[in-house]
Parts: sequence; structure tokens; C-alpha cells
Amino acid sequence: MAETLVSLIMGSISDWETMKKTAQVLDEFGVPYEKKVVSAHRTPDLMFEHAEKARERGIKVIIAGAGGAAHLPGMVAAKTTLPVIGVPIKSRALSGIDSLYSIVQMPGGVPVMTMAIGDSGAVNAGLSAVRILAMEQPGLTEKLVAFAEKQGKIAEESSHDLI
Amino acid sequence: MAETLVSLIMGSISDWETMKKTAQVLDEFGVPYEKKVVSAHRTPDLMFEHAEKARERGIKVIIAGAGGAAHLPGMVAAKTTLPVIGVPIKSRALSGIDSLYSIVQMPGGVPVMTMAIGDSGAVNAGLSAVRILAMEQPGLTEKLVAFAEKQGKIAEESSHDLI
Amino acid sequence: MAETLVSLIMGSISDWETMKKTAQVLDEFGVPYEKKVVSAHRTPDLMFEHAEKARERGIKVIIAGAGGAAHLPGMVAAKTTLPVIGVPIKSRALSGIDSLYSIVQMPGGVPVMTMAIGDSGAVNAGLSAVRILAMEQPGLTEKLVAFAEKQGKIAEESSHDLI
Amino acid sequence: MAETLVSLIMGSISDWETMKKTAQVLDEFGVPYEKKVVSAHRTPDLMFEHAEKARERGIKVIIAGAGGAAHLPGMVAAKTTLPVIGVPIKSRALSGIDSLYSIVQMPGGVPVMTMAIGDSGAVNAGLSAVRILAMEQPGLTEKLVAFAEKQGKIAEESSHDLI
Amino acid sequence: MAETLVSLIMGSISDWETMKKTAQVLDEFGVPYEKKVVSAHRTPDLMFEHAEKARERGIKVIIAGAGGAAHLPGMVAAKTTLPVIGVPIKSRALSGIDSLYSIVQMPGGVPVMTMAIGDSGAVNAGLSAVRILAMEQPGLTEKLVAFAEKQGKIAEESSHDLI
Amino acid sequence: MAETLVSLIMGSISDWETMKKTAQVLDEFGVPYEKKVVSAHRTPDLMFEHAEKARERGIKVIIAGAGGAAHLPGMVAAKTTLPVIGVPIKSRALSGIDSLYSIVQMPGGVPVMTMAIGDSGAVNAGLSAVRILAMEQPGLTEKLVAFAEKQGKIAEESSHDLI
Amino acid sequence: MAETLVSLIMGSISDWETMKKTAQVLDEFGVPYEKKVVSAHRTPDLMFEHAEKARERGIKVIIAGAGGAAHLPGMVAAKTTLPVIGVPIKSRALSGIDSLYSIVQMPGGVPVMTMAIGDSGAVNAGLSAVRILAMEQPGLTEKLVAFAEKQGKIAEESSHDLI
Amino acid sequence: MAETLVSLIMGSISDWETMKKTAQVLDEFGVPYEKKVVSAHRTPDLMFEHAEKARERGIKVIIAGAGGAAHLPGMVAAKTTLPVIGVPIKSRALSGIDSLYSIVQMPGGVPVMTMAIGDSGAVNAGLSAVRILAMEQPGLTEKLVAFAEKQGKIAEESSHDLI
Repeated sequence: MAETLVSLIMGSISDWETMKKTAQVLDEFGVPYEKKVVSAHRTPDLMFEHAEKARERGIKVIIAGAGGAAHLPGMVAAKTTLPVIGVPIKSRALSGIDSLYSIVQMPGGVPVMTMAIGDSGAVNAGLSAVRILAMEQPGLTEKLVAFAEKQGKIAEESSHDLI
Repeated sequence: MAETLVSLIMGSISDWETMKKTAQVLDEFGVPYEKKVVSAHRTPDLMFEHAEKARERGIKVIIAGAGGAAHLPGMVAAKTTLPVIGVPIKSRALSGIDSLYSIVQMPGGVPVMTMAIGDSGAVNAGLSAVRILAMEQPGLTEKLVAFAEKQGKIAEESSHDLI
Repeated sequence: MAETLVSLIMGSISDWETMKKTAQVLDEFGVPYEKKVVSAHRTPDLMFEHAEKARERGIKVIIAGAGGAAHLPGMVAAKTTLPVIGVPIKSRALSGIDSLYSIVQMPGGVPVMTMAIGDSGAVNAGLSAVRILAMEQPGLTEKLVAFAEKQGKIAEESSHDLI
Repeated sequence: MAETLVSLIMGSISDWETMKKTAQVLDEFGVPYEKKVVSAHRTPDLMFEHAEKARERGIKVIIAGAGGAAHLPGMVAAKTTLPVIGVPIKSRALSGIDSLYSIVQMPGGVPVMTMAIGDSGAVNAGLSAVRILAMEQPGLTEKLVAFAEKQGKIAEESSHDLI
Repeated sequence: MAETLVSLIMGSISDWETMKKTAQVLDEFGVPYEKKVVSAHRTPDLMFEHAEKARERGIKVIIAGAGGAAHLPGMVAAKTTLPVIGVPIKSRALSGIDSLYSIVQMPGGVPVMTMAIGDSGAVNAGLSAVRILAMEQPGLTEKLVAFAEKQGKIAEESSHDLI
Repeated sequence: MAETLVSLIMGSISDWETMKKTAQVLDEFGVPYEKKVVSAHRTPDLMFEHAEKARERGIKVIIAGAGGAAHLPGMVAAKTTLPVIGVPIKSRALSGIDSLYSIVQMPGGVPVMTMAIGDSGAVNAGLSAVRILAMEQPGLTEKLVAFAEKQGKIAEESSHDLI
Repeated sequence: MAETLVSLIMGSISDWETMKKTAQVLDEFGVPYEKKVVSAHRTPDLMFEHAEKARERGIKVIIAGAGGAAHLPGMVAAKTTLPVIGVPIKSRALSGIDSLYSIVQMPGGVPVMTMAIGDSGAVNAGLSAVRILAMEQPGLTEKLVAFAEKQGKIAEESSHDLI
Repeated sequence: MAETLVSLIMGSISDWETMKKTAQVLDEFGVPYEKKVVSAHRTPDLMFEHAEKARERGIKVIIAGAGGAAHLPGMVAAKTTLPVIGVPIKSRALSGIDSLYSIVQMPGGVPVMTMAIGDSGAVNAGLSAVRILAMEQPGLTEKLVAFAEKQGKIAEESSHDLI
């Protein structure tokens, strides 16, 4: 399982604070990934090339984080037939509502699978990729089950801290 | 490819007007699916059972449409490790913003992959499922490429109607 | 009055900072309650069991606090016929608007009685439970009257601090 | 059970189109109620008197529907210690968001138990009252269980109409 | 001009931080006013009495600041025929949008003259009262003209600080 | 009372459908007014002249209705020291939220007294003007009292139509 | 002035109903333009080529209308150094707020000059292009002055229809 | 190129913290500009004069930053035929949504070219002006190309910091 399966991209280096939550999940599940700043607006050609070649490079899922007029996930989805997961980054003035609308309100025909705004979304982007990859790698399903059990246990036990 | 791969569920029969757009996409791509009303609030046990047994029944992707306090996609995601796609149905008072927030703002740990509000979202739910299933069925990738080419051509040719 | 009458649950230990305002009110009015982390998404089976058995355990009112895609109050309401009070926790990106919509916009048939976002809502969840319980315990009505008089007096006297 | 238990009030005759959904639920469950237009802004004294005397008249729950700057539920809650349920009526310009905020965002100390905007909220106001009254009338609990079973069955069977 | 002309009330002592901006304006223009905490929800009877007797006490304008489900200005307007100015206080979760909607969206028949959220609104509440009172006191018009000139001059001269 | 006391202006002829509600109120109270289309954007000089000369022409209150980027009330307020009442017209895309924010969010120093969006706001603009003018004309106060009594009676009697 | 100066593009044929308002303005001012459906999502390569070659083809201003996750104006701006004007099309669920945020909230570095949602925005896109082109063609300035005078006159005269 | 080409104005000295980002861009591109506080509300006559004389003073583009009920850009656009660029300043209560709506929702006939809220918008206002001025000064196009290349390179290289 050494081949890179997930391409984790983001529109700006400042998105990394959020998107590293995705990286941590992928690390935890042992899913090999690459990480890269690919800006829809500042590096449009690089973005197109990246999206276009992703499948032939063996990538199975693309995760794209972006904020504001967040065009990265949608444009990548327009240039590949791979599943694309979008993470709306919390923005300064509009708290990520702009990012969310720009990512989720895609027209019929070009799908982006959208996560929650910010950290929760970044975590779930990783978990969504794992759920998809588990189709081919039954071992990941086992890990997902273990993960769910563990987080359930932690939640349940946290009742002791209600003091 | 006769086995049911996608479980298409919705919270209410009134969601069908939107969710049949998903069914049409799955039909178009030849992806076998089941369709069912499963209400988080009115049939909670049925919902849990449905989600819990989906994987062992051979389902690969669950698509759930719901409106208002749209709990169906998130609760299903809590009871399965399969990829879950959520479609926010346009609601009467809040135009689907309530549906969107209820579906997309999931806490880290339990991912729902969210689509646009309404028809576009329903179409893209189908296409997202196809993109995921294409991982195992290369034939679907070819169909996706053809689909993209065709919709591009239609868009381009529609310029003639700008009169 | 030693029997537990109110079940105070919340989706995450981080909600406690808000929900302890509810606990303080119940303490103040001498209403016996239990408190527990019950996550709709991370402990769905526990949640169902909790809701299902609440009535037979003598619980009269359930108060559930949750944030983001806040499914806890609505799912509990689907699994019990007891009155369920929902408290939307202030969320990071959307300030609790997501929590509010997810809790209040329930479909006809499964009611959740919703409070304000955050601390005020948590206080009022406690007071709502007391108002309901007062139906059977006239002593609580007297306490509610005293509480109202006291807070009125405090408000009125605070005019002296307008300097 | 001939005594009036629920006072169903609304700010304007135009709210009746929504609030009669509440009346239908109360009729269905055999809960005796009164119905009245009581405007916070146009009949403030009547409103205060109505709220003040509700308890001594044997009322157990007050349901108040209002739209726009919807002050009725909150002001009634300020003048009684009975449980008060608020229903935000869909308004013309803001679709009921103004009504919702005006009702739900009550300060700590004076609780209003808020329902969804519009028809669903009106239905659930009735059901909430029934859930509360069931504390004293076990017969209502049985009816609630039957109601839940019936609506679950209807939901489940509606799958046959997915054509 | 020793008689109190403006009644400056607010729903909570915590609103004073904002509403003292109104007081400063009234001081600056030499308009005699009283200031008082009058809570619609915690001191409803006091509020009604205050509104009802304002005219006979010689009050010409009532300014009411309130936050959240801000019922004070509207209820006061329902109990007097004096001009009522409402100031929406910035609230914690919803930044004062709830306060604004609760104050401004009054039904036809009972007018509240609404200001901006927060400090600017408090300043302008004072200035609005002065503009109204100037109808009877020409000296205030002169002061308003001088005020406008002064603030224009300050604005213009601030260009020198663009460094 | 033949002299024009209120200047009723609006940004566009299409606002008249709303603003005639103001005219009807002024007619009902016998307040003499003028009505005029004065566009901040299309007739800026006319607007300035209109605002500047209003006082010397004997105008006591200016009522300005405008929609979208509704600059008329605020600009008029900048060019006069008379009380200015703003009515946000319901706009097509944003339902008048844009009109409301453009009118109400005035900076400290230049006050606009803002009404509700649309018809209710137009009615209340008329009533606000009457409340202000009543300061000098006690007869208007009597009419306001009668008006309030009448609308209270109508509200109360409408209970008979709850069928 | 026979050379095409403005490139009027839109994401979908359905945007034409709005964008033809732009065309009408350009026709009225005698500005030669081309019109074309160029979809960011369905014809991404065409879009890039279109944007890239615009300058060398003699285009001076690009006007792009798009709705929902409206990526067209921003992506075109990323691929050209020409001035790009974006028009947010009114969308079904979110009334064009999604379109507006997706177009206007561009990151620093890649500017899109954004218009109002819908028809007004389309009209003003045309006028903005004319204002820009007037820099080189003084005749357009004269026409703009005449246009402004005419619309002022129409506004002023419409006062006669206030009946 | 010593003549002033851009007039950079803002409604208040407090906007300078944002608008100096515009100044920095203009400095970087060597575009001569003037900067001034011109308040629509506090210095209305100065504003009109400024807008009216801009063209004859040789100004080619006006950039106006304003917050809250941000009338400056729209009023300036009403008094000139020059291209006007509006920058919505982030406001305290509403985070600049009020500023955005007040600037962008201009009626058809009087165009303001609107930027993003806050710093990004201020940067892009400068770049938009440069794109427009480049029509006459080919040297600016070269600089824009270099700027785009540089920011693309920086984005691309920032991938190294994803650690």
C-alpha cells in the first residue's frame, strides 16, 4: 500500500492549519497521500494539469480545501472523473459561509462532495476518503469499525467528566 | 452487474420529486439501486436497521435525501461505515438552508458527503456514486468521460440559442 | 422527591460548559436529574436505548443540548413520547445557527421544544422543565413565582447602576 | 376531560391558517382547548390579563403563534409560570426567520418552547402540549404511541409510491 | 428646559455599555432625560406602567435598547402613542440580527423607529430624539446644524491622517 | 392644517405600491403631505435640493422609501436636520434584506429611523410621522388613541372568525 | 468601431434571460460585443482558451454571468489580465446569494468586479463596460451623460404617476 | 505618468487600515493616486463636488471604501461617469454583509464594481484599477503578467511549507 491514493490539495498555505486535520486522519488509517498547494486562481494551469493527470497517476480520491470564493474543488471536479471531496475553510468576514456556498452549490453534472466548514470538515474529508477506499481494501473497513467503536467509547466515558 | 449497489433513501415521499433525479442518473449509468422511504424521525428503528445491514447486503454507497431538520444522512452515517451522500431538499420556509446546515455541519468523526440543495444536488448525488463505484468498475469511468464530453458539447452548442 | 425526573444529556463533553447552566437551574429548584454525554453520531445505539427507556425509568422530561448538525434532540424525540427540550449550542463557524436550524426545524409529527442558542437557552431549558413538572408539583409553581419576583426585583434595582 | 386544558392564541386572524393545524392535533387527541386572537401589540392589556389568569382558569399549557416581530409568546411567558409553546408564523419578507428569532432568542429567565416555522411547527405545538399533558393523563401516552406507530407505518408504506 | 423630555430605558443593565452612547448625545445637546432598566420579560408590569404614564409625565420621546428577542421597544410602543425609538443591542450568538429583526419587523399599526445595531444605533437614537424635539425647540436645530458641520469638518480633516 | 407637513418620497415609481400605504395613513389622520419620486442614484442633485430645502418649506418629517442599495433615506438624512423615516422596500433577489441593511445600518452621526420591510413598514412610517407631529398637534394624539382602540377591538373581535 | 470590444459570456443558456439585459445596454451604446455560453464546469478547457486569447483577439472587457457555485468570472479573471465583470444570476434555492458570494469573495490577487444579483446587475455590467471603454472613446462619455440625464428625467417625471 | 489617475476615497479614517492595501497595490504598480476621506453622510457636498470634478481633474478610476450603510461608492457613481470600484469594509455587528449589500445591490443604471469584503477586496480594487488603466498603458499589462506569474510561483512553492 505504498502507492499514493489520495491527493490532498488546498488553495493556499494558510489553509494548511485546517487541512492538516485531514492529513492526520489519513496518517492514522495508513492511507498514502500527497499534499500540495494548488491555487485555482493563482496557479490555474497547474490546477488543471494536476486534476487531469490525477487518475493516471493512480490517485483514487482528491480532497480539496479552499476558502472564500472557493473554486478549487469545483474546478478540479470539472477536470477529472475521480471522486472530489471539498472542505470549506472558515473565512474572515463570512465565517466560511462563502466557502461553503461556493463549494456545495455546484450545478448538476459536476459533483463535489462537501464537508462541514473548518476542522470538523477536514477530519471528515479524511474519513470520507477512507470509507471510499475501503471498497477496495477491506482492511480499512475494519479500521473504520474500530475507529467508530473507539470514539463511541470515548464519548460515553466522557460522562464522568460532567462535574 | 445485477446486484444492488446503491441504496437510495429519503425521509419522505415528498422528497421523491427531487430524488428521482438521482434515480435517473443511476439508470442512465446502469447502476443497480434500490429506492425507499426511510424516515429518521418517523421510522427510526427501520432507519438503524437499514443502515446497519447495508454493507452486508452488498450496498456500496448510500444516498439519502432529507429536508428541514434533515437528520437522515447523518444518522445513517453514524450506523454504517459505507460512504454516505446527503442531498438537502429545498424546504418551504428556509429554502433548504436548514436542510443544508443539518446535513453538512456534521461533527468530526461521522462524515456525510453533501450535495447542493435540490435538483442539482440530486443529480450530483447520482454522479458522485458513479464516480465512487468507478473505482471498481472501469466501465463507469468511460461512461463518465462520455457524459462529461456530451454535456460539454451541449453547453458549447447552446451558444447558438443566444438570440 | 428523590427520584430522577429530568434526563440532561448532551452530544459532547464540550457542551457541558453551556449545559451546566441547565444543571444549576435544576439544582436551584431542587429537581432531581441525571446528566450524561449521549452522542447521536458517536453512540447512536446508546442514544436510542437511553431515549427508549427514559419513560419506564421514571423520567418526565428530557433536555438535550447539541451543536452543529445537532441531531440529538430530534432523534431522542423520535424514540420517546416524553417532552423533549433542545438546546442549540453555539458552534464555531456558524455561531449556532446550524445548531438552531437542526433542532428547531423538525417535521410535523416529532416535536422538539427549542430554546435560544447558548447560555440563555440552557437556563431556559431548566426553567421549561420546571414549568412542566410544576403541573404535578404545586411547590414548583410557588418557586417559579418567587424566582420571577426575584429576577424582576434585581432588574428593577439594577437601574441604580446606570452610571 | 371537559375542562379546557390548552389555550391556543395567536397574534392575528391571518395566523389561523397555520394555527388550525394545532387545533386539528388537539382535536385528534381529544384535548379540550380554547382558541383566541390575542395580539401583543394591538391588545396588550388583554394579552396580560389572558396570561395572568390562565393558570387559575385551569389552563395547563399555552400555545401562541405569531409572525414578524413576534412578541406574543415571550410576553405571555413573562406573565405566567405555565409552559408556553411558541409557533413562528412564516412572514412575507423574511419567510419567518424574523418570527423565529423573535420567539426563540428569549433571555435566560423567561422560557418559550419554540417550534419550527409554519405548519410543521403548528402540528408539533399540538403534539408538544399532548406530551406534556400526558404526564397527568396516561391515556394520552397510549395515544401518542399509537400516533407514532401510525405515522411510521404510513412513512414506510409510502415507499410503494416511489414510481 | 429642566423637565425630563426623553425616557431612556433598556432591557438589562448589560445594555448600558451601548446605551450610554445615547445618554452622551443627550447630554451634549442639553436634552433632559431619565434612564432606567425596564425589562419587558422580567418586569412586564413595570414596563406597561412606565409606557402608559410616560406622556402624562411630560415625556416626549422614548428610547428603548434591547437585545436578543428584543420585545421592549415594541411593547412600549403598544402602550403609548409617543414616538418610540428602538436600539438593537449586539447579541452574543447572532451579533444583534435577532435584536434587529425583533425590533424592526413590527406589524402595521404599532411603529418602532429602529436604529442600527450597537453603538452607532445608540448615538443615532439620541440624535433622532433631538431632531424630533427640535420641532418645538428651534435652539436644537441650531445645535444640530453645528453638530453636522463639526463632524463634517472632522471627517474632512482626518484625510491628513491617511499615512 | 393646510400646510404640507410630511414629504413622502421614494426612489422609484415601483415603490409606490408599497408607499401608498403610508399615504393612506396620512390621509386617514388628516396630515397634509406631498409625494414625489426622488432617486438618490438617478436624480442626486434633485435629492440634495429636496432635502436641503425641506425645512424652510415647512416640512416637519421626511419619509423615504427605497429598495436594494437603498441610499435615499440616508442621503436625505445627511442633508437635513429634520427627522427622516426610512422604509425598506421588498427587493426581488434578497427580499428586502439589502434594503433594510442599507437603510438601518447608518453610521453614528446621521440618523435614519427605520421601519419594517414592505407594507407594514409603510403603514408604520405614516403612524410614526403622526406620533411625531402629535407633539405639536394634540388633536393627533386623540386620533392615535382612537386608532389604537379601534385596531385593538378589531383584533379582539376577529376571534369569532377562528372557525 | 466594428471590432469586438466586449466578450459577453455566461455559464449556461438559462442565464441568457438575465444576460440579455447586458446585451441590450451594449447595443444601446453601440459597443460591439460577442456572446457565448462558456461553462467553467462543463467546458473548462474552452473557458481557459477563451480567457487566454481574449486580449490578443482585441477584447477589452469580459463580462461573465453565472449562478450557484458561480466559478466562471473568477476563473476567467485568473486566466487573463483584462478587466472582468461578474454578474451573479439569481439561483433557485438561495436567490443568488450563493452566486454573489462565489463571485465577489475572490482572494486578493485575482479581481472580479461584481454587480448586483440578476437584472440590475446585468444592466450595470453593460454600463460598467461602457464606463471603462469610455476611457479610450470620448464619444461614449457623451452617451453616458445623455443616458444619465435621460434616466434622471424619467425618474423625476414619474412623480406624475403617483396616483 | 505623474498625473493622478486614481482617486482613492473612503468614508472614514477608520477605513484606512483596509484601504491602505489598495494604496500599496497602486504604489507597487506605479500608478499615481490621491487619497482622501470623503464621507457620504458627514460631508455630502464635498462628496458630490469630488465626484463631479473627478473627470475634469484627469482622474480615470475612482475607488471608494465604505462600511455599514455604505453609500459612498453608489453616490459617487451617481455623480460621475467614471468607473467606480467599491470596497465593502468589514463592519462590527454584521461583518461587512451590510457594507456588501449596500454597495453591490445598486439599481440598474448606476453601476458600482464591487470587491470582496475587507483586505482582499482592497487589494483587488487596486488590481482592478490597474487592469482598467492598462487599456491605455501597455506597460501595466506587462506588470500584471509579471505579478500573476510571481504570485503563482509563490503559491506553488509554498507547498514546501506543508509540514
